Amino acid sequence: MTEKTLRGLLSPVVTPFDADLKPDTKRWIEHSRWLLSQDCGLAVFGTNSEANSLSLDERLTLLDAAFEADLDPARMMPGTGACALPDAVTLTRRAVEGGCAGVLMLPPFYYKGVSDDGLFAFYDRVIQAVGDARLRIYLYHIPPVSQVPISLDLIERLLKAYPDTIAGIKDSSGDWANTSAMLDRFENFDVFAGSETFLLSTLRGGGAGCISATANINPAAISRLYKSWQAPDADKQQAAVTDFREAVSAYPMIPALKAAIAWATGDETWRNVRPPLMPLDGETGKGFVRMLEGRGFSMPGRRNID
Amino acid sequence: MTEKTLRGLLSPVVTPFDADLKPDTKRWIEHSRWLLSQDCGLAVFGTNSEANSLSLDERLTLLDAAFEADLDPARMMPGTGACALPDAVTLTRRAVEGGCAGVLMLPPFYYKGVSDDGLFAFYDRVIQAVGDARLRIYLYHIPPVSQVPISLDLIERLLKAYPDTIAGIKDSSGDWANTSAMLDRFENFDVFAGSETFLLSTLRGGGAGCISATANINPAAISRLYKSWQAPDADKQQAAVTDFREAVSAYPMIPALKAAIAWATGDETWRNVRPPLMPLDGETGKGFVRMLEGRGFSMPGRRNID
Repeated sequence: MTEKTLRGLLSPVVTPFDADLKPDTKRWIEHSRWLLSQDCGLAVFGTNSEANSLSLDERLTLLDAAFEADLDPARMMPGTGACALPDAVTLTRRAVEGGCAGVLMLPPFYYKGVSDDGLFAFYDRVIQAVGDARLRIYLYHIPPVSQVPISLDLIERLLKAYPDTIAGIKDSSGDWANTSAMLDRFENFDVFAGSETFLLSTLRGGGAGCISATANINPAAISRLYKSWQAPDADKQQAAVTDFREAVSAYPMIPALKAAIAWATGDETWRNVRPPLMPLDGETGKGFVRMLEGRGFSMPGRRNID
Repeated sequence: MTEKTLRGLLSPVVTPFDADLKPDTKRWIEHSRWLLSQDCGLAVFGTNSEANSLSLDERLTLLDAAFEADLDPARMMPGTGACALPDAVTLTRRAVEGGCAGVLMLPPFYYKGVSDDGLFAFYDRVIQAVGDARLRIYLYHIPPVSQVPISLDLIERLLKAYPDTIAGIKDSSGDWANTSAMLDRFENFDVFAGSETFLLSTLRGGGAGCISATANINPAAISRLYKSWQAPDADKQQAAVTDFREAVSAYPMIPALKAAIAWATGDETWRNVRPPLMPLDGETGKGFVRMLEGRGFSMPGRRNID
């Protein structure tokens, strides 16, 4: 059965890098703590975390640091998918041993056009190798990036084989018809919208919440919508968070999120990204800041650690 | 300047897996030795090697085993690209330290639609971090799988910055116009066709050879074409290797290559693939074997190690 501790709003926690582009554990913990303080769970190692730009060892080191810092594992859903089966097993096992309430698992994404049989075999082997009844897997459907979709038939087959382990999905297809079909078709399966744009629709359809990049910088408003989705002003709240999301989405998402945190904290280190991503360049960065200023953007309570 | 030891035919060496789907070093060395005996170089850790289905540690262990087995590093071009910069650096460094004449480097392939600036920064950082004048990089352009192309402008920029390090490219676009444009535009840059289908055209255009999946099972005929490409029967040779390639390509390539080796050696272990790939199923496998038999297929000198 699905753990309710992971419902609501989660953020794919952006990963800070130091001047040598190594993961900056202190800043990462600080940002994670702030997100928790805003009622936002931690989907560390997501697409917007540059997770696949981190080595396995770097991800394991960060995860251990989170446990040592006593971040609540009941609010953690680390990304543990990988192209290589042993990497997915190692990272998933560590997450479960650390008490994470769930993991968000990309399919192996190098080969394209692979069969549902092959994807089923991948998840099946991870589940068998981890061999822990505490494991809860949220599937990660993000075809615009992974180019490897998770079909409704594959979900059905996985749910039939592992009803207690397959806990839900993050749908980052951007295709509401797909999200809606999953909400209609599956029981005991927590559907998360891939962004706050579909949060209210997802909740009205019986979904569990959303896991959204912009939660890194706008968690309070999104979390409030989650908690008050049946309130009279819910549609108005939805319009406001959607509007902010769209304003940010006019820029490359990951560099923009980091630029927003750098601006809010005065900590320029936050601008660093790993190639193949690039920081916002001068003119684009200035336009982005003007947009934030024009909206009175702030991250209340978010301070620079230095 | 480019090392000539890597010209001609190379094979992305298929990676054997044991019953637990762990890399089988003995069978891998045996197959590699046979390929060398057929005048076929070793592009280990290519797409058809299931390289991205191997952990970094598994790739390092295999590479060390190749060095210990005295496979000629002057004939080795391991794939060392990765999504994560540190992985690419670690693997590239090991290859250079082991004396490999070159490396074949995928761009980071998780994020799509990335900029040439970002891809340049990735290769730049790998080159700076490895910091070894012996490094020779062959770029790996395989947009049908990676979905991250290497543009002509990016090549030009890399060649200008690192004329002694950027040694060439494997063009697996399947687009002859692109291969031809690279042959025309760049000097001191070894262009390899991504399959034997374009071998003769590539050589006539001044290219270096080909790196082909089917070289795993048909190296002698392709290598002969490379060595006698100016002979009167070259077009006839080309037609024959193309015909065989097309017959194999009617099946899923990697499982088919492994099924062919299993059939030729009587060693069923060779059929194993890692998910998300699947072995050829019963009926498909039978059809494949009938195709091989009908063509009098064999792998002369290739024996089962057991």
